[in-house]
Amino acid sequence: MTKPDIPSLTARLLKGDKLACAKLMTIVENDPADAKKVISRIYRHTGRAHIIGITGPQGSGKSTLVNQLASHLRKKGSTVGIIAVDVSSPFTGGAFLGDRIRMKDLITDRGVFIRSMATRGCKGGIARATCDAIKILEALGKDIILVETVGAGEDEVDIMNASHTSVVITVPGLGDDVQANKAGMMEIADIFVVNKADREGADIAVCELESMLGLTDKCGWKPPVVKTISTGSVGINELADRIDEHFNYLKENDLMRQKLKRRAEMEIVNIVKDVIARDVEEIKKSEAYNKLIEEIIEKKIDPHSAVDEILKMVKKRHVKE
Amino acid sequence: MTKPDIPSLTARLLKGDKLACAKLMTIVENDPADAKKVISRIYRHTGRAHIIGITGPQGSGKSTLVNQLASHLRKKGSTVGIIAVDVSSPFTGGAFLGDRIRMKDLITDRGVFIRSMATRGCKGGIARATCDAIKILEALGKDIILVETVGAGEDEVDIMNASHTSVVITVPGLGDDVQANKAGMMEIADIFVVNKADREGADIAVCELESMLGLTDKCGWKPPVVKTISTGSVGINELADRIDEHFNYLKENDLMRQKLKRRAEMEIVNIVKDVIARDVEEIKKSEAYNKLIEEIIEKKIDPHSAVDEILKMVKKRHVKE
Repeated sequence: MTKPDIPSLTARLLKGDKLACAKLMTIVENDPADAKKVISRIYRHTGRAHIIGITGPQGSGKSTLVNQLASHLRKKGSTVGIIAVDVSSPFTGGAFLGDRIRMKDLITDRGVFIRSMATRGCKGGIARATCDAIKILEALGKDIILVETVGAGEDEVDIMNASHTSVVITVPGLGDDVQANKAGMMEIADIFVVNKADREGADIAVCELESMLGLTDKCGWKPPVVKTISTGSVGINELADRIDEHFNYLKENDLMRQKLKRRAEMEIVNIVKDVIARDVEEIKKSEAYNKLIEEIIEKKIDPHSAVDEILKMVKKRHVKE
Repeated sequence: MTKPDIPSLTARLLKGDKLACAKLMTIVENDPADAKKVISRIYRHTGRAHIIGITGPQGSGKSTLVNQLASHLRKKGSTVGIIAVDVSSPFTGGAFLGDRIRMKDLITDRGVFIRSMATRGCKGGIARATCDAIKILEALGKDIILVETVGAGEDEVDIMNASHTSVVITVPGLGDDVQANKAGMMEIADIFVVNKADREGADIAVCELESMLGLTDKCGWKPPVVKTISTGSVGINELADRIDEHFNYLKENDLMRQKLKRRAEMEIVNIVKDVIARDVEEIKKSEAYNKLIEEIIEKKIDPHSAVDEILKMVKKRHVKE
């Protein structure tokens, strides 16, 4: 593979070239070192888009809702970027590709850019790669960026923290496991959606959420609960309005800086992890590393003490660079 | 809190003191730096136990099965340690504490040591802490260590790789999501269990697994599929026999070293992550770090370039030490 011409690709990106955008996204996914070259060139062209994170459990109709929301935003004249993140594990994540097929209306719309990202095939952390992908869409000039994740593991929470507005989707009757853990979502959500609101129990779900929300404090913002039926486009208008209101609230109440600070701190931790992981991968090729592994197996050194030795090697690498 | 006397605690541990064992487990959970002090003292006393990892989705009756297996092993005269790991996310993990209550028969048995570990309350990575906890149980002198996890995320796979024998549990009729992703489990499992085998579809589940297993190659070991009904103790004998056979297979075919190598490599990566995370936490307290965050927010520097600066600070820390 020829080395990508990052200066030329980023120049094209800033002129709105979607092909360059797709290529740059692949680059930041594949190589954390190249990601730095890309992001350092485009970072000052970011910061104008409204980034909206959307999460919820499997089967909550998330992708259809994202689809509907994107169509609505397009009709109102905004350009839209969509990143669908699949932090998959062998026990979950089955229906993901199927969901994407439903987006075919949007794919033919030139004002929309859609990208799926998955842990598999992504060298380095998915949260780091997603944050970089968001910046690329910002530099492409998208007005609104929708970032869709499944569930709320560590990576997903990081990804939600990269957004200005976090939307958490639930559906009526998802069972005790989910109900019992809604508390964990209270911290993330700026807006709640009860999707499939034509199902039995929708009003109870809304009531429950609202009573729990009485206990939260998000700098004066009370997360609204919106009922939607994404298959029938019900409630999408209201959801879009609430999202807009939240963004304005952030700006009017001087809360943007706080959001950006949290994002910067999260990004730094994830980039550090990636850089160190890359260093360790390099060190794994060395004879010294293999000798250490042998010594661990033979109980001549314990793994913690072996790491001391490895970190000395990492340090030497950084000195050389 | 007074600083724990690690030399005295480890000395007591090696004499079989269960209270010292519990205290040391808390220490390795709470402080990765102290973990090093503990493990470096006990590492050469590890390596005699048979470590068995057991995973499966929620609702598969995993804890009851672990309970039954432990009772069976106790009757055959082995001492047993159990570590139940909860890599919880807000969307999952509800029933965990309830499961533990079922273990009350075992808790009163002096030959069994039971420990629950959770991501919450664990400073540093859960996989790192679990590997350290396993070593503590080995040093306590347990013959067999059962490590129970839920699901198969990155942490869980790491934890399974810390074991000699990996048991993956499924139940009939768990739905398409799980079925579609059994492939991911093929790599982990040395033994499959179809639990709740009195349910409809059990034989189909066994057939499906066996036909998929035709495609795997685990150095000549063909993972058996065992049917169990853990609430009625059915199949526990056979499962224990298969686990024994697998351990013997490893030893007789010179495969132990390969397992230990994989474990050592996994442990090193996780300890490195923990050490670096701790370094970053320290650096977060510095003025230089806060200045960098401000510069990121003001777009004077991008997050990747900021990480370069932070790694220079990490390097200085290691030089000082």
